[in-house]
Amino acid sequence: MILHGYFRSTASWRVRIALGLKGLSAAHVSHHLRKGEQRAPDYLAINPQGLTPALITDDGAVLTQSLAICEYLDEIAPAPPLLPGDALQRARIRAAAQVIACDVHPVQNLKVLARVKALGHDEAVATAWAKQTIEEGLDALSVLLAKDAGPFAFGAAPTLADLCLVPQLGNARRFGVDLRWPRLMEIEAACDALEPFRAARPENQPDAE
Amino acid sequence: MILHGYFRSTASWRVRIALGLKGLSAAHVSHHLRKGEQRAPDYLAINPQGLTPALITDDGAVLTQSLAICEYLDEIAPAPPLLPGDALQRARIRAAAQVIACDVHPVQNLKVLARVKALGHDEAVATAWAKQTIEEGLDALSVLLAKDAGPFAFGAAPTLADLCLVPQLGNARRFGVDLRWPRLMEIEAACDALEPFRAARPENQPDAE
Repeated sequence: MILHGYFRSTASWRVRIALGLKGLSAAHVSHHLRKGEQRAPDYLAINPQGLTPALITDDGAVLTQSLAICEYLDEIAPAPPLLPGDALQRARIRAAAQVIACDVHPVQNLKVLARVKALGHDEAVATAWAKQTIEEGLDALSVLLAKDAGPFAFGAAPTLADLCLVPQLGNARRFGVDLRWPRLMEIEAACDALEPFRAARPENQPDAE
Repeated sequence: MILHGYFRSTASWRVRIALGLKGLSAAHVSHHLRKGEQRAPDYLAINPQGLTPALITDDGAVLTQSLAICEYLDEIAPAPPLLPGDALQRARIRAAAQVIACDVHPVQNLKVLARVKALGHDEAVATAWAKQTIEEGLDALSVLLAKDAGPFAFGAAPTLADLCLVPQLGNARRFGVDLRWPRLMEIEAACDALEPFRAARPENQPDAE
């Protein structure tokens, strides 16, 4: 498999964790987002959205959207499960993942912050936009997860929720967000103890700067 | 079941279609988004994100995030399937749904447009923001779906992709987007021929204005 990504892209980071947890390997191809390489014609031919990640399967099929890719990996390599439990538990795990993947990350990514700046605002306004987005999302997520047993988001093993949360906390630090959520910090610490999470961190990628 | 929603909320609309396709019924409770009712304390106790929809199951469990709710409904009532096919096909359907549910709708919803206006911009700037978001997303989606057999997004029956696309096209019209995608129009026409899609339309809801 080939993973088209970028070391700092949190969506690529999610897929790197999923690959690692499943014991799957992929060749990594980097597209420098700040240089706009994801909008080069040869990459748009792979993913017309011009976003990372994209996963090329061994059969040459192209998959886009990080959550869809993670669920694909979960279906072709079911152990350990990213969505354990019954339909209700799976729905709660997916919802936690989507708080980040739908309502936080797409509203604070590089592309949207560039649009805020294109409206005439400076870096400080863009950063405040990102911080507000992250804080509102993680405030809600910490409530949604408050009653679940730790140390991971949903119990004794990581799920799709954890592999969305950990990269988002990385972004939170980059924007100077006050990490005021003990439950989320507990989850991150549990994840950091696992080699697939450590290996997936941006600073451990070949394209890290 | 109880569906907390709003007639014009495209995320609620997706769930209404899913319920209809599955032949499931739910009592509808409306929260007027423009009046901020989704941020009332009694609703925040249900969904700490202050977003619609939320689904209360017959057992009293609370589910949030429209895609997670739709997948839950697909798991408890498998026919007709919202995610038919093999792992690869399911991944492609989920990715198409997520183009809208992750990269389009959350960046052009009422909440984000209010933030654009709070930066000092007028309605015209907010509308231009929404249009650009929708156009970029649907441009990409029309390419992603170009090679699939119609009339629906993925063949002869609607899937999770269709039930995200149809409400987003409704939003596109509201913002005056030029609907320049014949393939997407073909999908919408096929959906409009089905009663569950018609019944789910905003104008057919009891809280429609």
